[in-house]
Amino acid sequence: MVSVVSIIGLNKIGLVKPQDDVSKLIVDAAGADEIKLADFDVVVVSQKIISKAEGQLVDISKIEPSKQAKSIAKRTKKDARVIELILRDSNEVIKADKEALVVRRKDGLICLNAGLDKSNVDGDTIYARLPENSDKSAARIRDGIKKLTGNDVAVIIADTYSRPHRVGQVEFTIGLAGFEPIIDYRGHNDLFGYRLHYKYVGFADEIAAAAELVMGQGVEGTPAAIVRGLSRIRRTNATGLSKKLLLGKKRDIFHHSI
Amino acid sequence: MVSVVSIIGLNKIGLVKPQDDVSKLIVDAAGADEIKLADFDVVVVSQKIISKAEGQLVDISKIEPSKQAKSIAKRTKKDARVIELILRDSNEVIKADKEALVVRRKDGLICLNAGLDKSNVDGDTIYARLPENSDKSAARIRDGIKKLTGNDVAVIIADTYSRPHRVGQVEFTIGLAGFEPIIDYRGHNDLFGYRLHYKYVGFADEIAAAAELVMGQGVEGTPAAIVRGLSRIRRTNATGLSKKLLLGKKRDIFHHSI
Repeated sequence: MVSVVSIIGLNKIGLVKPQDDVSKLIVDAAGADEIKLADFDVVVVSQKIISKAEGQLVDISKIEPSKQAKSIAKRTKKDARVIELILRDSNEVIKADKEALVVRRKDGLICLNAGLDKSNVDGDTIYARLPENSDKSAARIRDGIKKLTGNDVAVIIADTYSRPHRVGQVEFTIGLAGFEPIIDYRGHNDLFGYRLHYKYVGFADEIAAAAELVMGQGVEGTPAAIVRGLSRIRRTNATGLSKKLLLGKKRDIFHHSI
Repeated sequence: MVSVVSIIGLNKIGLVKPQDDVSKLIVDAAGADEIKLADFDVVVVSQKIISKAEGQLVDISKIEPSKQAKSIAKRTKKDARVIELILRDSNEVIKADKEALVVRRKDGLICLNAGLDKSNVDGDTIYARLPENSDKSAARIRDGIKKLTGNDVAVIIADTYSRPHRVGQVEFTIGLAGFEPIIDYRGHNDLFGYRLHYKYVGFADEIAAAAELVMGQGVEGTPAAIVRGLSRIRRTNATGLSKKLLLGKKRDIFHHSI
């Protein structure tokens, strides 16, 4: 039997405003293209529209930077008010110089600028923070789609990140609901009966990366996609699932390698 | 117009032996499932079958470890003969301890154990090295498919890698032919006319990650996939394209961040 995964772009969502119901926008956009959502579909949604719908827009002209923010701003030659916003979402500054501000966010995600974003947001001093809790955002959208269609889909909130060692950003999963983000192959044998060396597959991150192939960046205006046909998907109603994708320093085999 | 990308698993390739013609195996496997290859398709092939077809299998029982290999083996508690094999493919040992041996390979790729692999290879002391030059391997397969079918496909050689900061391995592109691996958004504006913050998309790595969704690991026996419908693909006949995905230490904004 041929195994086929389809990635379907939803490009009729339009501009998203604070308090918009993202579940409804997704169901309507799918309907406008005569696509019926189905059980086991994974709906991948760009962080940007979640942040907008949840009103995570901050006008930096109203921000009073702390002493620490001013000091980092001086060293990194960035706007102290932007640094202040980043610090408010972080619990560790991992690296701060002219090249980059790498932080560990309060939710555990290690990324540049705490995921703060300027692009696709209207207004010169307006910045978009990441959703308050991306797993909860994903669960809300999943529940909303269930109510509107009766279908039990899984949901990923995806965001674009730079990677160590590699050129080019890809989409990562920053929040999810409805399925196990990691496939655990421990104890499995390969075709020859040997124990597999690779133990965990970053399934949710692969799905997020795959979704970018139709979502594109910025100008394309396709902030969501449906990924269909994933034979290895394992459903769960557990919460806080994105934490399973985060490595602490102590468990990171690349620690001190860059 | 709905944008759809399809990822089609080729699961009729069977076991690959040294000197097998991988182009023909791919074309035959597609044919057996009544799939016609088409221009602009990207064929993603697992490194494992390329290494096998190219005879990159080494029996470590015949390897004489160097002094450096013995010293690292002692520190890392690994087999000195395996370390010797890894060193032969590397030009820098980035990290060597009980957790991990991270090297920069001669081709520039930073990875664990120089990509040396035990799984899916028959024989207790047999290890599979990465292909000698994965870009050339990709180009050969591309040319072979062109001759057999007349179609101008692009080809990715993919391998499974651990990532800093994140749990779970994903597929990366270690060799490619026929298309630009990075999409360059510098100078592009977003929906609101702002310059985009994200400049480069790791397109080839996204395609490799997407292919794993049907290729699976080990037991699945689907060592290749066709990725179809990529509207942003830009063809090129340039060589050495995988180099565009590699960041040197100096350009890596995560340098000293782990």
